[in-house]
Amino acid sequence: MFYIGVIGAASCSATVEKRAEEVGMEIARRGGILVCGGRGGVMEGAARGARREGGLVVGVLPGRDRRQGSPYLSVALATGLGDARNAVIACACDVLIAIDGGYGTLSEIGLALKMEKPVVGLDTWRLISGRGLEAGILAAGTPEEAVELAFEEAKKRLCLP
Amino acid sequence: MFYIGVIGAASCSATVEKRAEEVGMEIARRGGILVCGGRGGVMEGAARGARREGGLVVGVLPGRDRRQGSPYLSVALATGLGDARNAVIACACDVLIAIDGGYGTLSEIGLALKMEKPVVGLDTWRLISGRGLEAGILAAGTPEEAVELAFEEAKKRLCLP
Amino acid sequence: MFYIGVIGAASCSATVEKRAEEVGMEIARRGGILVCGGRGGVMEGAARGARREGGLVVGVLPGRDRRQGSPYLSVALATGLGDARNAVIACACDVLIAIDGGYGTLSEIGLALKMEKPVVGLDTWRLISGRGLEAGILAAGTPEEAVELAFEEAKKRLCLP
Amino acid sequence: MFYIGVIGAASCSATVEKRAEEVGMEIARRGGILVCGGRGGVMEGAARGARREGGLVVGVLPGRDRRQGSPYLSVALATGLGDARNAVIACACDVLIAIDGGYGTLSEIGLALKMEKPVVGLDTWRLISGRGLEAGILAAGTPEEAVELAFEEAKKRLCLP
Repeated sequence: MFYIGVIGAASCSATVEKRAEEVGMEIARRGGILVCGGRGGVMEGAARGARREGGLVVGVLPGRDRRQGSPYLSVALATGLGDARNAVIACACDVLIAIDGGYGTLSEIGLALKMEKPVVGLDTWRLISGRGLEAGILAAGTPEEAVELAFEEAKKRLCLP
Repeated sequence: MFYIGVIGAASCSATVEKRAEEVGMEIARRGGILVCGGRGGVMEGAARGARREGGLVVGVLPGRDRRQGSPYLSVALATGLGDARNAVIACACDVLIAIDGGYGTLSEIGLALKMEKPVVGLDTWRLISGRGLEAGILAAGTPEEAVELAFEEAKKRLCLP
Repeated sequence: MFYIGVIGAASCSATVEKRAEEVGMEIARRGGILVCGGRGGVMEGAARGARREGGLVVGVLPGRDRRQGSPYLSVALATGLGDARNAVIACACDVLIAIDGGYGTLSEIGLALKMEKPVVGLDTWRLISGRGLEAGILAAGTPEEAVELAFEEAKKRLCLP
Repeated sequence: MFYIGVIGAASCSATVEKRAEEVGMEIARRGGILVCGGRGGVMEGAARGARREGGLVVGVLPGRDRRQGSPYLSVALATGLGDARNAVIACACDVLIAIDGGYGTLSEIGLALKMEKPVVGLDTWRLISGRGLEAGILAAGTPEEAVELAFEEAKKRLCLP
């Protein structure tokens, strides 16, 4: 069983939300547990997709009231940690898929890479270090490809065949 | 759907673990989501009981590796927060049931009461403040009674009939 | 240099605040760094006392705005962690002094004891476990005695002569 | 009094560490409190510089043992939060200066921007969002310019003349 994070902004275009939904559907079809920030936009799109395919979705919320989570969560975990919950999301996942995304997503990418978790990107941040090196985000062209890559990386990470 | 925390020590007597198991079974029978610290002893007893009855169990782990969680968890959430994860457990639940327990449990009781969450106690800490007042833990005599009380309190808290 | 935590409620009687002030003064006279929750009541009393004696006071705040801290802090650290900041306070100190106190204080005592930090108590919680054992809080009768005990314990803990 | 964060990698070239030292010196000369991650490299360079000029330096450490902090800290705050301490650093500062930096620094930049804190960059990450927009890091050419910019931004943020 893999824990796949889907990270992205709480408000986004309909096109981006649709891609998130397809990512969520594909994660559920492959039996992954989807972990997200539990709110709107990319998070809700992914959650909705995963639930439609019978998947399990965990939302790690920044606030103290679990009723502020998306209605598509299987588990709405109110952490009360504010933005520090982004570190919990990165820590809880075997691999993360970043879709588009704002500054919160940027922080989650940084935290995941710091923790040596693979990050797959779908139209997300390009990151060039002060020394001119590009951060190791694995680029995917479609939702299916993103999930395919994520599962491959998760298997490698956990040393499974 | 209620989120019921079960808190207690990672190592405990067989009798205490058995009571935790009965608490877990009863929470699952009533359709509650069981939230615990994800490790051994009381946490594992409760998780095992809940899973036996088809329940959903979330373990909020202190460490960074979800594979160190109990095998009975539906969701093993590696937070990497150390003991600060105790605040996440208290925050995520509508009500908590404390069974016996050590210092970690004591901290979770304090955090839950601070957050104005009801705490039901089964042979747990007695707490007398500097002014001689006893902390408002609701005493239960049996696992069934503890879960009964917990659901009553959760309903009141969320203003449900 | 020792890090001495002073924990207690954000609102308290004038008598309790006075004792906190004496504790703060004595910590500063002995050259300790005072760590507290950075708010009113016991925390502010202790901070005021320490500053009066030229001490250094760190307030570890739950909120996101450091301007909500007590004016007597040398460093107002806005954590944004909510009640999870209680774990940071316990972790940052070599020893803690609990003065009276409510549920937040109770949680800090539990967290500190869990982390094997000594806790000195001044009219604070009495804690009796489910097995009838009293928690290892070191009782002090006066502010001076509390600080004396705290420094002794800090030295032992850090293996200093 | 302003709280200025200095963020960067725990291991870096001598040139980068020297620039961090100059940043730290300049922050202290202007009376700012320097907040950093408390470890080596950029953090230690900045801390050393600030202390040389009589400044106050707070190190917010990821681990549980404050003795693992840099010797140049005025306050070594052991949080025990792991990488979630990066959110505490971002939250505690009025403005942050990023010097070169790795993935941890990247996460701190993301967290700070998410919290609407200004970030000044000195040879640091360039960040281009999925929509082709560059993140709002204020570029500085020298340590002095970086600190100058940081204080200007802090004043604006706190609405001071």
